[in-house]
Amino acid sequence: MTRTTVESKSKTVTIGFDEPFCVIGERINPTGRKKLATELEAGDFSTVERDALEQVACGAMVLDVNAGVVYNSNPDPNQTEPPLMVKMLELVQGLVDVPLCIDSSVPAALEAGLEAAHGRPLLNSVTGEEDRMEAILPLVRKYNVPVVAISNDDTGISEDPDVRFAVARRIVERAADHGIPAHDIVVDPLVMPVGAMGSAGRQVFALVRRLRDELGVNTTCGASNISFGLPNRHGINAAFLPMAIGAGMTSAIMNPVRQVEMEAIRAANFLMNHDPNGAEWIRFARVLEAVKEGKSFAEASAEAAAGGATGGRSGRGARRRRA
Amino acid sequence: MTRTTVESKSKTVTIGFDEPFCVIGERINPTGRKKLATELEAGDFSTVERDALEQVACGAMVLDVNAGVVYNSNPDPNQTEPPLMVKMLELVQGLVDVPLCIDSSVPAALEAGLEAAHGRPLLNSVTGEEDRMEAILPLVRKYNVPVVAISNDDTGISEDPDVRFAVARRIVERAADHGIPAHDIVVDPLVMPVGAMGSAGRQVFALVRRLRDELGVNTTCGASNISFGLPNRHGINAAFLPMAIGAGMTSAIMNPVRQVEMEAIRAANFLMNHDPNGAEWIRFARVLEAVKEGKSFAEASAEAAAGGATGGRSGRGARRRRA
Repeated sequence: MTRTTVESKSKTVTIGFDEPFCVIGERINPTGRKKLATELEAGDFSTVERDALEQVACGAMVLDVNAGVVYNSNPDPNQTEPPLMVKMLELVQGLVDVPLCIDSSVPAALEAGLEAAHGRPLLNSVTGEEDRMEAILPLVRKYNVPVVAISNDDTGISEDPDVRFAVARRIVERAADHGIPAHDIVVDPLVMPVGAMGSAGRQVFALVRRLRDELGVNTTCGASNISFGLPNRHGINAAFLPMAIGAGMTSAIMNPVRQVEMEAIRAANFLMNHDPNGAEWIRFARVLEAVKEGKSFAEASAEAAAGGATGGRSGRGARRRRA
Repeated sequence: MTRTTVESKSKTVTIGFDEPFCVIGERINPTGRKKLATELEAGDFSTVERDALEQVACGAMVLDVNAGVVYNSNPDPNQTEPPLMVKMLELVQGLVDVPLCIDSSVPAALEAGLEAAHGRPLLNSVTGEEDRMEAILPLVRKYNVPVVAISNDDTGISEDPDVRFAVARRIVERAADHGIPAHDIVVDPLVMPVGAMGSAGRQVFALVRRLRDELGVNTTCGASNISFGLPNRHGINAAFLPMAIGAGMTSAIMNPVRQVEMEAIRAANFLMNHDPNGAEWIRFARVLEAVKEGKSFAEASAEAAAGGATGGRSGRGARRRRA
């Protein structure tokens, strides 16, 4: 069975066909978050801190860290990203104990991150583009880490799932040439918006199954892409995730502070027989009880996590404090 | 492709691999509803009427009608069920135009129902029990209707999915002996509670796939069984249904007045490419908007359905009326 091992200093997370779905928290990323970008340029890391703590409390098992800020003062990411990546990684791994995912399009930022990260981080990402494979795969080999492989290449992103599968296979083969085993490749088959392409969901489900059966690799995706542009997006995401899990998807890069999506994943874990006796489901149901009593999902999750560390039953504790 | 055709006087519903998931409303059933049972014995059909209208408004495509009341005045269902079944069917098909599912364990009630129902009702059900097959399959043949086949036999319900598959195959083969084609058999593979059997979800997903690939039959289930005994049951149901749909399940007997489950099914239809341009999803998102404004799901659905009949955009209409 394929097992991808990701580690922090003190914690191991296994992505695998017989493991609970691996939630990779996507929040620590200034792309499209102008306020966060401005804060980072000003040296203010308070949002990063809050995002790290909240995401882990809500159930993120790995945290993605992206330092892709374009500074007003210096527009060259090759200069600005590597030191910012190091600073952010050091901050986050000082706050939380989950493994990290080093996310950049700048190879120097990935390498600086690999030097700074504890344990065995996940590298995000390589693609099927020639120069990208030749820049990234040697790093993967040198630092002996797993890597996210996105199935686009020099011709772009194909709408044909067979082409995306072929790109994934080419990356896996090229990685093998570098001495990197398939179980250290986590393929992102690329999720299209179902509002723009009606076959988008079925494409992904079929691709995930093939990637698993034919290449033996774990898979991930940017889950919320599926619902781009649609009303009531969380409802689409909350059906997509269980369907993808049923098809064999083993991780996603997503926002774990969203209750509806996390509920869907926890239910799917239970239904895949990856939650013995439903212990995690029952614990999560207590969090939802606290939400019904008026707490935010992040607050209720944080209280449950804190309670869990000192013996659990935080739901009851919370009610006692209230009474 | 397997297509099971169910008809009322004026409406055809197709259960099939390339069709939206068929929601069979389960509410018109006095089993476990003591108040309804008492009403029926007293000749009060107001709850039946409300359940018929509400379920159709909320999205039921077929209505199950079960007359399984044990009268205090006459405990023999062979005497009481046939006339009550006829009365209930006539009432329901006078109120709504969807096809019906005639549900009874009493063969005489099934036959009386077949005489009374318009169009091509679904018969619920035959099992793999010898006497049941010999009583029901001739009715299925005589009235040329599709039938739900439940995969238990004279030895009971097996926990082994291979045995349940073998029972389903035996019913399909026996039906063929009676001249009944496989596309008129809708197999219920039996859903166990995941709280009692951790493998229950995976069993069903694997069984549905086999039933589809090897026997070419449509499938159904009592969907809420999966979450029996668990906290936050709707969350389990709302992940189970999309996963079952992804595995190939084509219908379920369920409560369509539950928003969470119906949202999951509508999202799954979209993700299976069975909702062209997401038109149904967008319409449903308007219903959810009305729910957020304070309406019940049944009210909001009924208003949308009424608006839909006169040209749609009921969500906007509802808001205009408010303003």
